[in-house]
Amino acid sequence: MQLLKDRILKDGRVIGNDILKVDSFLNHQIDMKLMGAMGLELKKHFEDRKVTKILTVESSGIPIACVMGYLFEVPVVFAKKVEARNMDLDVYEGEVYSFTKCRSYIIRVSKRYLLNTDHVLIVDDFLANGKAVLGMKDIIDQSGAILEGVGIVIEKGFQDGSKLLREAGIKVVSLAVIDSFQNGKVVFRD
Amino acid sequence: MQLLKDRILKDGRVIGNDILKVDSFLNHQIDMKLMGAMGLELKKHFEDRKVTKILTVESSGIPIACVMGYLFEVPVVFAKKVEARNMDLDVYEGEVYSFTKCRSYIIRVSKRYLLNTDHVLIVDDFLANGKAVLGMKDIIDQSGAILEGVGIVIEKGFQDGSKLLREAGIKVVSLAVIDSFQNGKVVFRD
Repeated sequence: MQLLKDRILKDGRVIGNDILKVDSFLNHQIDMKLMGAMGLELKKHFEDRKVTKILTVESSGIPIACVMGYLFEVPVVFAKKVEARNMDLDVYEGEVYSFTKCRSYIIRVSKRYLLNTDHVLIVDDFLANGKAVLGMKDIIDQSGAILEGVGIVIEKGFQDGSKLLREAGIKVVSLAVIDSFQNGKVVFRD
Repeated sequence: MQLLKDRILKDGRVIGNDILKVDSFLNHQIDMKLMGAMGLELKKHFEDRKVTKILTVESSGIPIACVMGYLFEVPVVFAKKVEARNMDLDVYEGEVYSFTKCRSYIIRVSKRYLLNTDHVLIVDDFLANGKAVLGMKDIIDQSGAILEGVGIVIEKGFQDGSKLLREAGIKVVSLAVIDSFQNGKVVFRD
């Protein structure tokens, strides 16, 4: 998606060899106009699918997931990372290793909000090694719901998350795929 | 807001004497159609104010904050609770005590995204003792920005957050104010 690529080139900051900071418009400060345009673009790719629920994981996936829920007119569910006192005890759990945070954590979705009749579209801001998506897929599998696909804003194409998911027969759509960082610059896949 | 009150009565679950669970539509599973209607209603109350930024705290404030950012056509910033490896080091910090989680935590906003020229509207899903809003107000004060007001979805009117904020001269608008829980039922303030 050219609008997104242009924005990444304009406002993204490459740090070291593997970190792209896009917190000026995607995951700390959020540009909702861009988010709306990205939601419309992502929706086109899944319009042939039956979607009854959008699933993401807190926190940075929530804005794009909310746009998708609004456009598909279906509920958005976000998996929680932190065990809260008032969380339902009856939950599906998945494990996720975060390379950004250098630790594993458990994500949870209340069994009330994922049914075996659901058709689920996973949405997230980033796809790199795919651990977060695989944790959500595990939760969907436990619930008996059907995973219809995965919609991503920015994919790090040089990591293997997308390959793993596609090999598992899952439709993955990323609005921008980064092939590499060269001399502190982002190189996109055509 | 009658639409919200009706939904709370229909789908909210009262647990014990002080917990209202609305995770079927507000903060775990999200009804974006309701969220959109609530955003329009909240916006009416702040249309006389200059607003250049929406501020909330992750995670459950993000959906309503995103709607407000979309409607006001200004950036949304969400304060982060967890220290991540790729968080900017140059941040404003505020401390928040969570009665839900029985502990204090630090919230952080990158100095890049809160400027002394900003006019900020704080938005959150719940207001109870006001600790989260006061933590955000502290961050806004540090930045030199101006706090224009606080927009809340559900206020627990029997706790003192709203009173504290209004005594500090801050405009607070809540779409539904709960006066008490009686025999497991929600009693709204008129």
